[in-house]
Amino acid sequence: MSLLSSFCSKKRRLSLVSWEASLVPALSWLLLIPCLLVVNSNQCLADEGMFPVSELGSLDLQAKGLKLTSDEVFNTDAERTCLVDGICKVNGCTGAFVSNKALIITNHHCAYRAIQAASTTENDYLKNGFIPSKPGEEIPAPGYTVRVTESFKDVSEQVLAAVTAEMDFAQRSKAIERRIKEIETQAESDNAGKRAEVAEMFAGKTYVLFIYTYLKDVRLVFAPPSSVGKFGGDVDNWEWPRHTGDFSFMRAYVAPDGSSASYSPENVPYQPKKFLQVSAAGANEGDFVMLLGYPGRTARHKTASFLEFEQNVRLPFVVDYFGQQIETMQAAGANDRALAIKLLSRIARLANVEKRSRGQLKGLAGANIAANRRAKEKELQDFIDAAPELKARYGQTLAKIDMAYAEAAKTAEAEANVRNLLLASQLMSFAFTVYDGAVERQKPELERESAYMTRNYDQTVARLKAGHRDLELVTDQQLLQQLLERMGEAQRASLGLPAPGQLGPLYKASQLSSAATLDAYLAMSVEQLQAVEDPFMRLIVKLYPEFQRLRELGKQRSGKFDKLYGDLVTVKQLFQKLTFVPDANATLRLTHGTVRGYSPADAIWMRPATTLAGVIAKTTGKDPFETPAEVVELFQKKDFGRYAHPELKDVPVAILYDTDTTGGNSGSPILNAQGQLVGVNFDRAFEATINDFAWNTNYSRSIGVDVRYVLWITDTVYKANFLIGEMGL
Amino acid sequence: MSLLSSFCSKKRRLSLVSWEASLVPALSWLLLIPCLLVVNSNQCLADEGMFPVSELGSLDLQAKGLKLTSDEVFNTDAERTCLVDGICKVNGCTGAFVSNKALIITNHHCAYRAIQAASTTENDYLKNGFIPSKPGEEIPAPGYTVRVTESFKDVSEQVLAAVTAEMDFAQRSKAIERRIKEIETQAESDNAGKRAEVAEMFAGKTYVLFIYTYLKDVRLVFAPPSSVGKFGGDVDNWEWPRHTGDFSFMRAYVAPDGSSASYSPENVPYQPKKFLQVSAAGANEGDFVMLLGYPGRTARHKTASFLEFEQNVRLPFVVDYFGQQIETMQAAGANDRALAIKLLSRIARLANVEKRSRGQLKGLAGANIAANRRAKEKELQDFIDAAPELKARYGQTLAKIDMAYAEAAKTAEAEANVRNLLLASQLMSFAFTVYDGAVERQKPELERESAYMTRNYDQTVARLKAGHRDLELVTDQQLLQQLLERMGEAQRASLGLPAPGQLGPLYKASQLSSAATLDAYLAMSVEQLQAVEDPFMRLIVKLYPEFQRLRELGKQRSGKFDKLYGDLVTVKQLFQKLTFVPDANATLRLTHGTVRGYSPADAIWMRPATTLAGVIAKTTGKDPFETPAEVVELFQKKDFGRYAHPELKDVPVAILYDTDTTGGNSGSPILNAQGQLVGVNFDRAFEATINDFAWNTNYSRSIGVDVRYVLWITDTVYKANFLIGEMGL
Repeated sequence: MSLLSSFCSKKRRLSLVSWEASLVPALSWLLLIPCLLVVNSNQCLADEGMFPVSELGSLDLQAKGLKLTSDEVFNTDAERTCLVDGICKVNGCTGAFVSNKALIITNHHCAYRAIQAASTTENDYLKNGFIPSKPGEEIPAPGYTVRVTESFKDVSEQVLAAVTAEMDFAQRSKAIERRIKEIETQAESDNAGKRAEVAEMFAGKTYVLFIYTYLKDVRLVFAPPSSVGKFGGDVDNWEWPRHTGDFSFMRAYVAPDGSSASYSPENVPYQPKKFLQVSAAGANEGDFVMLLGYPGRTARHKTASFLEFEQNVRLPFVVDYFGQQIETMQAAGANDRALAIKLLSRIARLANVEKRSRGQLKGLAGANIAANRRAKEKELQDFIDAAPELKARYGQTLAKIDMAYAEAAKTAEAEANVRNLLLASQLMSFAFTVYDGAVERQKPELERESAYMTRNYDQTVARLKAGHRDLELVTDQQLLQQLLERMGEAQRASLGLPAPGQLGPLYKASQLSSAATLDAYLAMSVEQLQAVEDPFMRLIVKLYPEFQRLRELGKQRSGKFDKLYGDLVTVKQLFQKLTFVPDANATLRLTHGTVRGYSPADAIWMRPATTLAGVIAKTTGKDPFETPAEVVELFQKKDFGRYAHPELKDVPVAILYDTDTTGGNSGSPILNAQGQLVGVNFDRAFEATINDFAWNTNYSRSIGVDVRYVLWITDTVYKANFLIGEMGL
Repeated sequence: MSLLSSFCSKKRRLSLVSWEASLVPALSWLLLIPCLLVVNSNQCLADEGMFPVSELGSLDLQAKGLKLTSDEVFNTDAERTCLVDGICKVNGCTGAFVSNKALIITNHHCAYRAIQAASTTENDYLKNGFIPSKPGEEIPAPGYTVRVTESFKDVSEQVLAAVTAEMDFAQRSKAIERRIKEIETQAESDNAGKRAEVAEMFAGKTYVLFIYTYLKDVRLVFAPPSSVGKFGGDVDNWEWPRHTGDFSFMRAYVAPDGSSASYSPENVPYQPKKFLQVSAAGANEGDFVMLLGYPGRTARHKTASFLEFEQNVRLPFVVDYFGQQIETMQAAGANDRALAIKLLSRIARLANVEKRSRGQLKGLAGANIAANRRAKEKELQDFIDAAPELKARYGQTLAKIDMAYAEAAKTAEAEANVRNLLLASQLMSFAFTVYDGAVERQKPELERESAYMTRNYDQTVARLKAGHRDLELVTDQQLLQQLLERMGEAQRASLGLPAPGQLGPLYKASQLSSAATLDAYLAMSVEQLQAVEDPFMRLIVKLYPEFQRLRELGKQRSGKFDKLYGDLVTVKQLFQKLTFVPDANATLRLTHGTVRGYSPADAIWMRPATTLAGVIAKTTGKDPFETPAEVVELFQKKDFGRYAHPELKDVPVAILYDTDTTGGNSGSPILNAQGQLVGVNFDRAFEATINDFAWNTNYSRSIGVDVRYVLWITDTVYKANFLIGEMGL
């Protein structure tokens, strides 16, 4: 424990001083000043940046409108709670505790997998919503976890000490991986019941150990019908104006003794250290807002050649291939609601990425982002070339990165085809995970792939089984067949894959769709699995060397990129005489901004709030623009409860603001100047899909559901008043 | 002459008094007060209304911002010119004289047929524009006419005196038609060299005789490339924000003695009584604007049952069938520019109607227009039923109108199929016009269909021949085949039409595609034509009784509707104690408003001006978003000549304003408070396609090209400085 910086926790003992003392040596990346990104560096954009919470002191948010002290948002004083204690991670999303019984508000799309898993054609919670009539009517959400950040600590020196100059790139990568596992294992043994994770902040350069409370019994408390929670569907996804009530309530449970436990009826609600106050006043144009959350991945420190790789290779492939898969699954579910329920979550995930990728392609093409970055790199190269000692050390860094992407581009599609075997066919994926697990679990703990380490294996199996429930063979076969067609004969032959037309007998012969078979296989050794007759297991055994080759290639590449990008950040800091905010990496960040509109194109101005009247205007009665009769009726009666906007005389539905977000910020609470929850973040505007590569004050806008719509739907429409009471409203 | 009210003309002799005296008796329709339409009658919408210019005095435009006296816009003083003298009709569009040599500014899409007719793959004026290098470099525009309104006079009594109570509906219709022809013929004989036309103002109720100067030698003076004049193409058509430089210059010529004449090299420019001053200052948000022009058709006085007929029967058919034709023609022209040139004008016309119809369908569905009108009719019916004398006379009027539409709906598609034979196949159309002309021209002058009267026949033949030039048999056959498929076997059999697959030999055998054959047929008698072997002439001879039946049915229906709608207007006036503006009918009207934005949907605000930067942003390099290299280059150099907006520091391209317009207002000059030309009207926003049925201050917006863009393109980009000089700038 004493090794870790903890924060905002009465149970923690480290003082601010010891925390600073322990971190300062390796914390060059934490000495952050806003507005330092490579792109747009010619203007100071006050609202750019996904700041590690440790940076709060340097941001002067009070000048921007925050009415709290920075300490009230985040502090390292073990005796005082702070807002950050009210934030949690819900699988890949963010959530916020809104009661002392761990009631969590997050997005409908974050709870979607749980709603879907509980839905049948008889109890279609996707369609009708999950509307409890009294407290305690909840549904387990298998495969869901909630984690709460407890503390963090820079471990860069410790990690990088594992690397020696003689190592090649793959060795380097493996040495770092192994060292990280050691640190995590040690930290978990030091912090019983907690989860430890080392996050790479700057690639190949800085690493931070995070300690999380890790809750495994998560339940669904309230979900509006998809016609509210997913209103507009894939048509409106990534678009403003938006009219989606994208929220749900969940709850985290622990064993009666307070320890983390899997689902059990005996479990009791977790008690968060802090929960957020909900303000029914919502947020209006011009208001200060800030978001806390776990943004997933950005690539703002990547090179122009990376952007070109995205623009010319990866994104077009994703748009094309995902588009094909979506079409196939939609057709399959068109006249079969039971099948549609199974496929909906998968379609939603693919469609989300497909449309985001389209937005990014449009943004990359339109905004000259790669060309601008190339120009900045030219300036950096000139700076390097002018100083002999820099030139000797970094003169080739950019060129080598460019070459590495050029190299990767050559085989990118062929490699993607192989990896996509596990995406297209769930049978292939199950067989692979079972066999890969058996192979890896023969190895010593620290040499295993992370998913198969003892600390992770249960969750890996739980996810495997959750996915297995939704297996559907007709679509599985169609998707696999399409991928085999896409591969072409030469690649199929080289891998020993069947022709697209020959899949029928394989599917007929396979037993892998039975849960009993899956359980049996999970219990087998590598040798036993190699002897199994199931055609999909045989295919995986045959393909396994190729998957291993790709895994090794991946480690080699990532070792190379880590080294090169580490050098690039070092020399860039010398050049700009500044440090930067690290790219998002699914660790806790803060972003702040203002509720404000934007102009997506000449002569168009987007206002930053939508209304219930807009929902009604968009309603066609056909998916995805259906609206529940209750909602239409209350709108017509102008029954807005206490949730109407005082001037608009209507319920505000969604709001727009210029914070800096990316995937993973889904579910992030939108906080007002008092730190009260006024909405839930769920998306970005189409132009802002490009956020992942570059942020821009003119068009980077995030979208959230206004808390007034959340409360109106929960309270006035669906009468779950006890939840309103639980939130203290 | 003394029978006619004339205006703004030094050559005219009637005084205001005699004009008033001659018109008052039948002029109930001219005693107009704004804001009286059936729809939206609950609020006074100051900007609604396509006012006959005679109404100007009652509008108090000075209170709205006009800096001229009403007399300066329009007066009946023979000694004084007025703005109205500077307006002309260019085929179905409007134009404005902008020099004393009859330089006319109108839309690119209005001149499109002329540009297309002059274009070849070698001299592709559609693609490259027609850019004269010196004065006098002009191209004849065959088939184009320019007409200038000289005077008008109410002739309702004279027309309706032809009707007796005993007549059935067809007889009624024919009697009115014949009387109108008599009046027109007499007026033309009284006014040598002029054109006379009686316009029905309120159906079956009021008729006005218009006298026009009619110019037949029209030439193309300047056209920008389609990449400017049609920028955005069918994608942006009917849409805001718009970035289209939709303007062209033409010129009207007369014989050296000043009389109207067909094209001859000896002709000299016409001298308009008045030409409009162009103001290079353009128009900006909040500015007063007014338009003069010839709006074609609106249906604001039609019943809910008419709207339902449109919504359920006619518009869906148009969208479906036109869409199919467009697709076929686009595919045909995709790889053959010569063929594409022939088809472009036809595609543009169909696409325009198709998209407008889609907008109208959306508007009718969304805005509850039919239901609202039905509710108003219910109030009217209650009013009628409450007064026995009204009930006796008008009690069944609405019900009879409803029944008539219900009746028409039953056979609408079958009838449309027959009429569309002449739309789908030009060969069919040519054969029909030739044969129909021969039949009709056997009759006495006043009994002929209007197109074949001596006063019209030359123009009918000229149009026939202009169309014949663009005949293209492969597409002609495809389109006819599709229509035959659409008809189905039963209808084909009943009409004796060939099966879709049997057209090949017919096209092979026909000689009608030769200009010599067409000339020969035009010289033949009915009997001679009946003996002709050409398969298309034989088809037409066989189908002719069906076409005659439909024509007779049309007269019968129009007689019925005229009678019923005449009654409806009468009783509506009693009910509302007001009179109304008559629906648009291609006669001269004025509309006024303000340059202002609008909200097409919740949270979206459209600003009322676009810029050259927006053109560049939309430019993809692919049709319809190409931009000439010269334009891009000058934009990059920020060379805006003297045409930049002082604050925007950019050239304004298009403006948006809330005047009341419809088709026929294309090319209408946008006039500022001083009556100076500041732009050229060319379209409406998508939501405003519904204008034809109902006007609304919230979304009825017209779109024009800002004169600054016109001048920048003409002067700065294409160096046609002599035109700028001719306009006196």
